[in-house]
Amino acid sequence: MAGSRRPGRNFLFVPGPTNIPDRVQRAMIVPSEDHRSSSFPELTLPLFEETKKIFKSREGQIFLFPATGTGAWEAALTNTLSPGDRVLAPRYGQFSTLWIDLARRVGLEVEVQEEEWGTGANPDRIEEALRADREHRIKAVLVVHNETTTGVTSDIGAVRKAIDAAGHPAMLFVDGVSAIGSIDFRAEEWRVDCAITGSQKGLMLPAGLGIVCASKRALEASKTAECRRVFFDFGDQAKANATGYFPYTPALPMLYGLREALACVEDEGLENVFARHRRLADSARAAVKAWGLTLCAKEEKWYSDTVSAVMVPDGVNGAEVIDIAYKRYNLALGAGLSQVAGKLFRIGHIGDLNELMLMGALAGVEMAMLDAGIRIEPGSGVAAAQKSLRGSQEAR
Amino acid sequence: MAGSRRPGRNFLFVPGPTNIPDRVQRAMIVPSEDHRSSSFPELTLPLFEETKKIFKSREGQIFLFPATGTGAWEAALTNTLSPGDRVLAPRYGQFSTLWIDLARRVGLEVEVQEEEWGTGANPDRIEEALRADREHRIKAVLVVHNETTTGVTSDIGAVRKAIDAAGHPAMLFVDGVSAIGSIDFRAEEWRVDCAITGSQKGLMLPAGLGIVCASKRALEASKTAECRRVFFDFGDQAKANATGYFPYTPALPMLYGLREALACVEDEGLENVFARHRRLADSARAAVKAWGLTLCAKEEKWYSDTVSAVMVPDGVNGAEVIDIAYKRYNLALGAGLSQVAGKLFRIGHIGDLNELMLMGALAGVEMAMLDAGIRIEPGSGVAAAQKSLRGSQEAR
Amino acid sequence: MAGSRRPGRNFLFVPGPTNIPDRVQRAMIVPSEDHRSSSFPELTLPLFEETKKIFKSREGQIFLFPATGTGAWEAALTNTLSPGDRVLAPRYGQFSTLWIDLARRVGLEVEVQEEEWGTGANPDRIEEALRADREHRIKAVLVVHNETTTGVTSDIGAVRKAIDAAGHPAMLFVDGVSAIGSIDFRAEEWRVDCAITGSQKGLMLPAGLGIVCASKRALEASKTAECRRVFFDFGDQAKANATGYFPYTPALPMLYGLREALACVEDEGLENVFARHRRLADSARAAVKAWGLTLCAKEEKWYSDTVSAVMVPDGVNGAEVIDIAYKRYNLALGAGLSQVAGKLFRIGHIGDLNELMLMGALAGVEMAMLDAGIRIEPGSGVAAAQKSLRGSQEAR
Amino acid sequence: MAGSRRPGRNFLFVPGPTNIPDRVQRAMIVPSEDHRSSSFPELTLPLFEETKKIFKSREGQIFLFPATGTGAWEAALTNTLSPGDRVLAPRYGQFSTLWIDLARRVGLEVEVQEEEWGTGANPDRIEEALRADREHRIKAVLVVHNETTTGVTSDIGAVRKAIDAAGHPAMLFVDGVSAIGSIDFRAEEWRVDCAITGSQKGLMLPAGLGIVCASKRALEASKTAECRRVFFDFGDQAKANATGYFPYTPALPMLYGLREALACVEDEGLENVFARHRRLADSARAAVKAWGLTLCAKEEKWYSDTVSAVMVPDGVNGAEVIDIAYKRYNLALGAGLSQVAGKLFRIGHIGDLNELMLMGALAGVEMAMLDAGIRIEPGSGVAAAQKSLRGSQEAR
Repeated sequence: MAGSRRPGRNFLFVPGPTNIPDRVQRAMIVPSEDHRSSSFPELTLPLFEETKKIFKSREGQIFLFPATGTGAWEAALTNTLSPGDRVLAPRYGQFSTLWIDLARRVGLEVEVQEEEWGTGANPDRIEEALRADREHRIKAVLVVHNETTTGVTSDIGAVRKAIDAAGHPAMLFVDGVSAIGSIDFRAEEWRVDCAITGSQKGLMLPAGLGIVCASKRALEASKTAECRRVFFDFGDQAKANATGYFPYTPALPMLYGLREALACVEDEGLENVFARHRRLADSARAAVKAWGLTLCAKEEKWYSDTVSAVMVPDGVNGAEVIDIAYKRYNLALGAGLSQVAGKLFRIGHIGDLNELMLMGALAGVEMAMLDAGIRIEPGSGVAAAQKSLRGSQEAR
Repeated sequence: MAGSRRPGRNFLFVPGPTNIPDRVQRAMIVPSEDHRSSSFPELTLPLFEETKKIFKSREGQIFLFPATGTGAWEAALTNTLSPGDRVLAPRYGQFSTLWIDLARRVGLEVEVQEEEWGTGANPDRIEEALRADREHRIKAVLVVHNETTTGVTSDIGAVRKAIDAAGHPAMLFVDGVSAIGSIDFRAEEWRVDCAITGSQKGLMLPAGLGIVCASKRALEASKTAECRRVFFDFGDQAKANATGYFPYTPALPMLYGLREALACVEDEGLENVFARHRRLADSARAAVKAWGLTLCAKEEKWYSDTVSAVMVPDGVNGAEVIDIAYKRYNLALGAGLSQVAGKLFRIGHIGDLNELMLMGALAGVEMAMLDAGIRIEPGSGVAAAQKSLRGSQEAR
Repeated sequence: MAGSRRPGRNFLFVPGPTNIPDRVQRAMIVPSEDHRSSSFPELTLPLFEETKKIFKSREGQIFLFPATGTGAWEAALTNTLSPGDRVLAPRYGQFSTLWIDLARRVGLEVEVQEEEWGTGANPDRIEEALRADREHRIKAVLVVHNETTTGVTSDIGAVRKAIDAAGHPAMLFVDGVSAIGSIDFRAEEWRVDCAITGSQKGLMLPAGLGIVCASKRALEASKTAECRRVFFDFGDQAKANATGYFPYTPALPMLYGLREALACVEDEGLENVFARHRRLADSARAAVKAWGLTLCAKEEKWYSDTVSAVMVPDGVNGAEVIDIAYKRYNLALGAGLSQVAGKLFRIGHIGDLNELMLMGALAGVEMAMLDAGIRIEPGSGVAAAQKSLRGSQEAR
Repeated sequence: MAGSRRPGRNFLFVPGPTNIPDRVQRAMIVPSEDHRSSSFPELTLPLFEETKKIFKSREGQIFLFPATGTGAWEAALTNTLSPGDRVLAPRYGQFSTLWIDLARRVGLEVEVQEEEWGTGANPDRIEEALRADREHRIKAVLVVHNETTTGVTSDIGAVRKAIDAAGHPAMLFVDGVSAIGSIDFRAEEWRVDCAITGSQKGLMLPAGLGIVCASKRALEASKTAECRRVFFDFGDQAKANATGYFPYTPALPMLYGLREALACVEDEGLENVFARHRRLADSARAAVKAWGLTLCAKEEKWYSDTVSAVMVPDGVNGAEVIDIAYKRYNLALGAGLSQVAGKLFRIGHIGDLNELMLMGALAGVEMAMLDAGIRIEPGSGVAAAQKSLRGSQEAR
């Protein structure tokens, strides 16, 4: 029916799922195969090793659950803790909220540290809380590395230092879902006990894998942890994984896709990937500034290199900008959630993106804002972003 | 490197994962998209409806977890039962064993009915056990419809009648993983409270979806069930699904693939699909008979239309046949598991198969058996299978 | 190797090959099949009919050669003319030059009308030449509808009128390679005897099909035409095509792709496709104007809706802009060819494009020009293009 | 609509097009790209080199026309000969007939040597004819290496010796379409001046490339040859190819596919590919013998390793076997053409096949023959083929 087709490509600028590179897309087109064959471990054993690299871990153990980041959250907690165990968790957005909620629902007691939205984990307060916990009732600290809701990145290295400074034995669990593979993450240096991600962000795959990189300490804890789990059990996985198999049928296209996605990262260079995210994020932020708008992130130190949450002027509903962008310009932006609903829109700049993809999106944001009645200078954001990019270009 | 490539197609005759039809494979090649867009429900809402058809359910509620059948097992139990609840479960193979194990690990008490491997659920004993349970402590009966280990299909209609005859209020949960979409399944007629399947069997998809079709009664039970679950929570799903969304990022290729797989079933006709599985299974059984071998299934009434477990003669290790078949003929067969390890090999005849694919596999089984020292008449199985097929052909 | 991968998508803004829509890409993934099977015509017979629509022809005959536009040029001439026959051909760019060259090489005598590059076919001069040809030695007039070299579209309707006004029986052959499916083309209304296109432009496919839509008169001429041809013979094709087959093995993925590409056009609406190309071209031209640059096309009436050839300022080599665009911004632009080599670069805006793809490209052109030392106001082109688009948006 | 879908895979046993390996299929899924970019030669230059290997040529020049084998036939003749030139061509099937027909239509004079269908090129007669041609009017000898119509392979080495023995300067042109990449071919050793193939046979690609491997002598001849050609001109190609480009837009998916197909051959090993074709052909022939039927090929020395033409008993129409095979068993067989129409059916055993694929096909042929009323022993062919294969297996 005439009019039923939208020409060209969708501009996907939500903070996940992210664009799938063609070569990853191709790699996922695999026939079914016997996942118990003698040749299957040729795929899987190197995969566990390669996956560690994006976590910057050598000693960790990788778990590849055919699930999502939410499942990986659940896996991390249920495998290492027992009902009634206490955890400390700063809250500063929708995803920290959901993880806290999940922790409670699996039976944990959560000590919540409220932080203003637009800021992140406060190492000083964490240290303070741990020092106050003289009986070491707190078994783990839960931190969301990159809070997607507000475009805020917390300093995990500083959190680690805070725990050490307090001399507290709590484990450190980090949700790196919208960070790992895009923003520098150092599981081993920071001694992260469970680092969690999903496949549909920095790994440039569809959703369908929940990934945990567990420290030796977390594995040790799993031996006595009493939270109920079967599908997400570390032990079942570890036993089968040891020889290259899985306790139940794995999602084959995801494994083949993961192998290719890791090769993509390798071919670009992990540090280059981080630098690119920084460069694109800088240019997006330059655009926001040129528009005369502000980010939800309160200070530069909180700026996320994977998502920018842009505050809309009073009297404008951020949802309208998003709706116009999608319907009129085929541009997908992220919405404001929970307490920032309507107050902002989010530009995800994560995954397999380059300069001109971002330029197209920024031009689209400009048109959608103008259509929604926000007074900005047309082209101003694009010009500022160009300047930012060309400057960094020269610096390379 | 010369010699590193195996020409032609692998003959995949394990009882899952099954072959993916080309059109389903194609349908899964989708770019990432915003799963919170206003147009997303155009995909999902009809999908929930269409999926019911393969369960023969109109009133049921479909849950599509980005997980596997094991996850669906866990979802069914944890959403409807509370720790300490008692369930009744016949055991006659590896998969009934694993489900029982899972039930215990999530905190349930399981009353196991041991049945000889090669047989299935015994409705008389189930009725008896339920009658004996005067206090109605048994909250659910757990039955594996098709026990993949032994190639045995149980009579779920008879189990339903047994429960009714006992006048017992226990719910009925059925693992239909290697049956649904291949063997007639009637969730509504049999009043199955949780019917469970995965994507990689009759649905001809990769693994990556754990599917539950829940009755109203099961949904009601989920309101008070106290087993811990978040990722697998019915309530979170139901709430989001109501408007076409999911509580966390869905595995998009699987959803698009499911839509196409259901269209495949529709285009062939569900009853035609069942008839084809019966026809192919009959011809495989004719081959086994011609070889002078026997099935693990003790009687004709137990014969499975999706997998035939073939007993090897004394002195031969079934694993050797499987190994030769794979390495020399690129044919994947299923192994004997647990108490039947080495005693049999399994021919899966499930999913997107036709007559000549089966003929090629049977010829391969013959060669592998001959190579392994089993004395059969070359070509005898193929000839018997041909006769069986041509007979049924005429009958059509 | 780190650094060996370019992230994100290439911005393909050459005037062909054009971007392949995902659904067309998917449709081309087909297994081999017997092209002489009884079911094969179910694919092909409707395809011949559907293809006519983009030519706006009902009476024409479609030839689908597994070749390219160059092959279709050759097919048109060799099937309808004999060695020594005279044709009239205006020349105003590289593609008109190549076609003239081809005509000579197949043995025709060509009367060339030189037109200034940046202009196109001159109906008055054509009429004049035909009037002068009292003996009707000119058998055909050859016109390139859209001269890709210079971004010039000629008025084919006016050429038709000129031929009619001269009362001359010459056939009219039109190269519509970079026009058909993107710019309005009316084979029947304009009585085009051979309309020629390739698959890799408006049809959004890879190269691999050379397509001719031949009039009854052209078919009649093919019966006596003596130019040698076998692979490109109309007669062999017509005979086999009549029942849905081909005289030699067809390129199956191209046929399946063509079917889907035509469905894409149908789903968008052919007139909507034209309007979109106009809208995007208008906005690209607005950008050029804002940059203070000029098009190669001399007057507005010559402006092409599928490609804009942008003159670079004196002292700058257009090739450098193109080189920077490709290497630094992953943007492919078209080069200046032959007499305009180095003097311009070309922005192809043809095929499966939308607003933001063009915005990204324009932003990239700006950066590449700035890097090459062309003094333009950053963002100015994008802003002008936005204004143009938003204006037309409102007008819709 | 129920009944509108055929389950499982088609068994494609025509002698081309052949099955496309998954990895080749994947490799062809490429976005459009600028075929004039600076990086394009990275694809093409190695491709020309790699392609030579399957011709066993080091000195030859490869031409990759976006066409088919028919186009390559035309290219070979028109680039090297002039109208009125005389060529010698034995005729023993439909494809030798078609090539002779093409030669005449491009203006050559053909001296035809009729050979009985079921035999092939007769070196003695060729020598005789060349000796008789004292004035060396014969410019080339045209031989079809593998006559697909009858399943006959000619001895090209012997033809070369015959030409040498006659001391005649004629060039040697060989149609290797259904041989090259499947049956040993030695362009250099045999001093073949134009070796011709298409993509859809031994190269396991779709149709869409016509390939010529030309000797230096053929290239030299092209400088003076006067047959008209443009699309198929060696000179235009050679000039552009020298730097990695093409004179017109290449069919990109075919080039990427070719690269992968050649890698497949490399990974299996070219000699292993030949041996596999021999092994499968031997087992197919064992089946034919067991059925009590005969091949069209008159003697063992003519047996083709890529296709077996099976004579049907008197009173049976081969076309009926083919029709039943296709409609009832989803098996595509080749038909009898021209003077053997109805008298035989052909089993193509060429391309990406393995043992069990052939077994399935043979079982299908048996069923189709039985259904068509041919009295054979069910399973007898499969059993004989198994024996043949297992014997060769041991011999490996």
